[in-house]
Amino acid sequence: MARAWHLMNRPTGIPTNDDAVLKDIALAPLDDGMVHVRNRWLSVDPYMRSRMNDVKSYVPSFQIGEPMTGGAVGEVVESRDPSLQPGDMVLHMAGWRDEVVEPAGHFNKLPPIPGVEPQAFLANLGLTGGTAYFGLLDVAAAKAGDIVFVSAAAGAVGSAVVQIAKAKGMTVIGSAGGADKCEFVRSLGADEVIDYKAGPVVKSLMAAATKGIDVYFDNVGGDHLDAALAAARQNARFAMCGMIEGYNTGEPTTLRYIMRVVAMRIRMQGFIYTDYMGRLGEFYQDMGAMIAGGQVKERETVMDGLDSALDAFRGLFTGANTGKMLVRL
Amino acid sequence: MARAWHLMNRPTGIPTNDDAVLKDIALAPLDDGMVHVRNRWLSVDPYMRSRMNDVKSYVPSFQIGEPMTGGAVGEVVESRDPSLQPGDMVLHMAGWRDEVVEPAGHFNKLPPIPGVEPQAFLANLGLTGGTAYFGLLDVAAAKAGDIVFVSAAAGAVGSAVVQIAKAKGMTVIGSAGGADKCEFVRSLGADEVIDYKAGPVVKSLMAAATKGIDVYFDNVGGDHLDAALAAARQNARFAMCGMIEGYNTGEPTTLRYIMRVVAMRIRMQGFIYTDYMGRLGEFYQDMGAMIAGGQVKERETVMDGLDSALDAFRGLFTGANTGKMLVRL
Repeated sequence: MARAWHLMNRPTGIPTNDDAVLKDIALAPLDDGMVHVRNRWLSVDPYMRSRMNDVKSYVPSFQIGEPMTGGAVGEVVESRDPSLQPGDMVLHMAGWRDEVVEPAGHFNKLPPIPGVEPQAFLANLGLTGGTAYFGLLDVAAAKAGDIVFVSAAAGAVGSAVVQIAKAKGMTVIGSAGGADKCEFVRSLGADEVIDYKAGPVVKSLMAAATKGIDVYFDNVGGDHLDAALAAARQNARFAMCGMIEGYNTGEPTTLRYIMRVVAMRIRMQGFIYTDYMGRLGEFYQDMGAMIAGGQVKERETVMDGLDSALDAFRGLFTGANTGKMLVRL
Repeated sequence: MARAWHLMNRPTGIPTNDDAVLKDIALAPLDDGMVHVRNRWLSVDPYMRSRMNDVKSYVPSFQIGEPMTGGAVGEVVESRDPSLQPGDMVLHMAGWRDEVVEPAGHFNKLPPIPGVEPQAFLANLGLTGGTAYFGLLDVAAAKAGDIVFVSAAAGAVGSAVVQIAKAKGMTVIGSAGGADKCEFVRSLGADEVIDYKAGPVVKSLMAAATKGIDVYFDNVGGDHLDAALAAARQNARFAMCGMIEGYNTGEPTTLRYIMRVVAMRIRMQGFIYTDYMGRLGEFYQDMGAMIAGGQVKERETVMDGLDSALDAFRGLFTGANTGKMLVRL
């Protein structure tokens, strides 16, 4: 019997065992044009938290009592469509479950990129790496010589930002929580690393960025955003990506340095990976080369089994992951 | 004897009578190349408040014990440079005083624009109008059909924004404090007017902007900025100009809706009028035509005499002005 995680309540804060529950599901009949896929890798991502709320956002809300969805890589086990054959690996959005039968058009056959593992399409060649790539290079228009500050630099998106920035000739200051994660960020090539648990971020950043910053890649909002405002040089560009801090708390953000937006002509620009779907070709080529060349490495935190998916998701908000959090089935 | 306002202390909050004092000054000798100008109009502007602080900003700080400066229009009374003749009207930066002798290169002869009063070069054809013009049309890239929200819409910059936006075919929602100012903003052509003293800005804006907003022209920061974040439609652009609220209080800004920057792909961009000095020709032509055509009207609050300059300046922060605050000598 196939199983899927269902949303049972709209959580406040981090979802509890009552808010999301694993239940049996019936698969759709394998009619003409349908494909049966067994999932191998599930992605859990911070944006899914906002889908658990009943608010208008850039992705529709999950419905109460219904299975949740999300990025997944699976293997075709049966196909009644000529475009896919058993054994083919596919990228699709029917995550949070172990098996799925859907029309062939819902599955994307993985493009052949030598030396790249299939789960990379959920990470450095998927939403997380693509968010890092387009956010840094397009939204923030970062270029060689820029001083780049990245929050949550040990996270999935952040660690990709650090490596892409170094590969493109930038100076990188990363922020992470605790000695182990800071050491990891340094190992990715960051020039300076801030431990945000060791003191006020604004103080640490001012000490690390004596010349200020040209680019801020925001994954968390809050104190980090305020510190970046304080350290910004003229014409600094902020790629506004995550703001993970605000997802669960509902707390307002207090900014002491927002006035510097005017004086320093700072540009803050929000963006979503899916806006760049039309440019995936260029991304696969450039990012694929950086992965193949060893300039961008994948660090994964893997949890095993569909039963662990909720814990894996919750771990995103408690700092349990270094790099991309994945569930292996 | 010539006189000038001197900064005596770095004020906290609104400057007191002890912080700035009117004192006699000696004029420079009228050597070759020098020009003697009698000021006719002085500009007082919110940005001057930050020049009274000892912090790095986009304009240098005023020095303790020294005369302050600012935009002024004056009449040449004596000239030892062939470029200027007695009777010429000039725009220059030696404000906060009644007379000045400086090199001819410090004075800009007013370009001939028919039907425009000389003090317009301190207002709709100067810093305030230019800030409105480039902020709305360039920074926020506002275009016909956009829904534009303007804070401090009864102020100098705000009232120009309202009129330019209407002249260019936009829908305008203005915010102002109190019934009189709201009525004034309506008389400028605004489609909807919010009285920010009558209730929470976010509530009023959500009611006035049922379809949301495409553009926010920010003159105040704080609650207005937060309301604009709450009402922003996808790809909204914010021109970040003033943040007058923060100038005196030193209070941090609390934002409940900053997360919407990501979901709505909002672009916030700070800017300074002086960045656009290279495009004054285009501005004089387009804005001059709107003034001559009666689409952009000047509303002035005028105080008389050099002695009133500090009161005029303080009035900017207490809501004493409608439109451009000027001192007439």
